[in-house]
Amino acid sequence: MTGQEVRLQPGERVDDLLTQQLKIIQSDEVFSFSLDAVLLARFCSVPTRGAIVDLCSGNGVIPLLLTTRTSAKITGVEIQPRLADMAQRNVSLNGLEDRVRIELADLKSYHETAGYGAFDLVTVNPPYLPAASGDIKGNPYIAAARHELFATLSDVAGACAKLVKSGGKVAMVHRPSRLAEIISELRAVKLEPKRIRFVHPRLDQEANIVLVEAMKDGKPELRLLPPIVVHEKDGAYTEELKDIFYGRRSELQA
Amino acid sequence: MTGQEVRLQPGERVDDLLTQQLKIIQSDEVFSFSLDAVLLARFCSVPTRGAIVDLCSGNGVIPLLLTTRTSAKITGVEIQPRLADMAQRNVSLNGLEDRVRIELADLKSYHETAGYGAFDLVTVNPPYLPAASGDIKGNPYIAAARHELFATLSDVAGACAKLVKSGGKVAMVHRPSRLAEIISELRAVKLEPKRIRFVHPRLDQEANIVLVEAMKDGKPELRLLPPIVVHEKDGAYTEELKDIFYGRRSELQA
Repeated sequence: MTGQEVRLQPGERVDDLLTQQLKIIQSDEVFSFSLDAVLLARFCSVPTRGAIVDLCSGNGVIPLLLTTRTSAKITGVEIQPRLADMAQRNVSLNGLEDRVRIELADLKSYHETAGYGAFDLVTVNPPYLPAASGDIKGNPYIAAARHELFATLSDVAGACAKLVKSGGKVAMVHRPSRLAEIISELRAVKLEPKRIRFVHPRLDQEANIVLVEAMKDGKPELRLLPPIVVHEKDGAYTEELKDIFYGRRSELQA
Repeated sequence: MTGQEVRLQPGERVDDLLTQQLKIIQSDEVFSFSLDAVLLARFCSVPTRGAIVDLCSGNGVIPLLLTTRTSAKITGVEIQPRLADMAQRNVSLNGLEDRVRIELADLKSYHETAGYGAFDLVTVNPPYLPAASGDIKGNPYIAAARHELFATLSDVAGACAKLVKSGGKVAMVHRPSRLAEIISELRAVKLEPKRIRFVHPRLDQEANIVLVEAMKDGKPELRLLPPIVVHEKDGAYTEELKDIFYGRRSELQA
């Protein structure tokens, strides 16, 4: 993997992507990857070959991380031109053009391009908040990453169900506050939740992140994996979290 | 609370009910209360007054434990005559006739007796396994406690929804493997999950018990409480579990 020179836009910087010599362009003005994306990229059950699509792909952090776990072809779908462009430059920067492609597209209609059931795995880190909630003025990129401006949870579940093949997986990271809705929306489109894992800031605190993996046309039988705890009592990161974050643990599938 | 003499049936014994000077008649042949029941009795949000009904009440362990947390009137509903009789003797043994009544009834039609929306809280520790799964021969009492012979999950959710008032709570203990179904069945009858807590045998193991509390006609907004861990790495009970089990922690609502 030898990357090429890419041009940075104003406000952008190149950061190390924690693991495996990957680099990533990001910008606090537009999009920076979060713990959520790293957790999802480690949690999902990746096929060794085949095809993966990452929806709401942002600057492409999940496709980049997934290249360290699989030799499947990976597509990142992003609706915002500035972010899709950043994702494309991230692919080039890491010399991954032959393994990752970025599509500027709307997830709601992407099955018309890609075809029904075209993917073995769909990953998605959707916006967490309903469009109507809170302040959606200010920075439009941040607003779209946080609020369901381009697609609702129902739209996301529907797109996942159309894009994944029967028996394939859909992996999502979201907020536990919306878990009941997530399960309802997934089951409504025949995506049966099979593995769930919660992330707690500390062992004695409520979870603030949930990882859900569903199987298209799967039978009901859920595994509730051990909790991930982020901080020790003294505030330091737990060893487990550091292992995940720095890629010393190759997967979170337990 | 001064209990009265009660007659024991063959195979029955009187055990301490862990906390608050309660005693309980049980029998390994018929019904013994489990950690699940104790956890549910601590987890549920009890009204200080009003009316509570416990479905699938067995030998009445949950009503007995709830008397230590509330002065509400508590009804235990049990469909098996031998267990309802045991529950009634447990009420007498503890001198709680003025606070707990036991009804020999089918939860599916109990709203016809009690009335719609008659209760502020419904608790239920239903059988965990579908009727068709595994071995349901052998001991019929054990079979009915484990398998959905008298009522399915859907029946249980429907009964809870009829018995609880709008804004009231329904608290259930179950197996995480069925969580997706539980959430679907609850939401189908307007019981919105609001609090969930998982119990893991050890911190690094999958959860084997889930506690769910829903609100009738509630809005979607779920809290995912800290995990309960039963055993330390060395196999000893955790301090938290002992606090819960012996009632040193008055409630699990945090």
